[in-house]
Amino acid sequence: MNNSPPSGVEIERKFLVDRLPGELPAGEPIEQGYLVVGEDGVEVRVRRRGGVTTLTVKSGPAMVRTEEEIPIEERRFETLWPLSEGRRVTKTRHLIPLGGDLAAELDVYSGAHEGLLTAEIEFPSLEASEAFRPPEWLGREVTGDRRFANQALALDGRPPHISGA
Amino acid sequence: MNNSPPSGVEIERKFLVDRLPGELPAGEPIEQGYLVVGEDGVEVRVRRRGGVTTLTVKSGPAMVRTEEEIPIEERRFETLWPLSEGRRVTKTRHLIPLGGDLAAELDVYSGAHEGLLTAEIEFPSLEASEAFRPPEWLGREVTGDRRFANQALALDGRPPHISGA
Repeated sequence: MNNSPPSGVEIERKFLVDRLPGELPAGEPIEQGYLVVGEDGVEVRVRRRGGVTTLTVKSGPAMVRTEEEIPIEERRFETLWPLSEGRRVTKTRHLIPLGGDLAAELDVYSGAHEGLLTAEIEFPSLEASEAFRPPEWLGREVTGDRRFANQALALDGRPPHISGA
Repeated sequence: MNNSPPSGVEIERKFLVDRLPGELPAGEPIEQGYLVVGEDGVEVRVRRRGGVTTLTVKSGPAMVRTEEEIPIEERRFETLWPLSEGRRVTKTRHLIPLGGDLAAELDVYSGAHEGLLTAEIEFPSLEASEAFRPPEWLGREVTGDRRFANQALALDGRPPHISGA
């Protein structure tokens, strides 16, 4: 039986992290700031990740969402970044091997979300996702919890529970 | 005495147009749509003008306004344009020589603002601006009237008075 997801669908689980799994490999800084979020849900954000700077326009919730990611020059990012003040997520992403083909994207938040740690694992199939036994350093599962999505973190500030205890 | 404006300052007068000044030279279509305007005044718009497509981010009112105009590919414009529905200005711009070095940018609006005609004239100096005697086809002066600015037209719809009578 083949349980691999259709093209474009990702099977992911997300966890809070109680304590770091030993020494971390070098991470990649990610800065993401919302320039504006409209009443109808259209959002425009800028991001810098590993030296790549982009501006993304996303339409509001709908069956079919428009998303355009536009590469921009670093100097444009620098000019626009101040407009996102108070609506930012900054973190460093570390890739932690979990054995087999699996790896966790461990995000260590800074700035307004200092102290928050999350880990996301992508699975090749539903079966693999269900068979997954989280290592001890992973805390409470928050898969599908919108409070931990980037936009919610950026706009609402620190989520109510940052501990997986 | 030299009354030419400091660099970056434009001396312009804007008029409503009662009737067209004879046959118009070929014009340039301009399509401008606001993707989102935030509570703090940050606006993001896309524009197509003479085959050039751009996305512009502008900060809200402040002493120093940030403005970044980013060239985008036509296919990105096409994808983003639907998000501006109900927040658009479309017009055709005709350049009308006025004698001397002066010319009017005559804008013939279409879509939601069909019937609106405006003309804008830029002057090399304050003196030239004050000495200007509008030709008969120009109607009521609306210089500085925010209701006829692009964003106001796009967001508020048709302005209260479209005739210069």
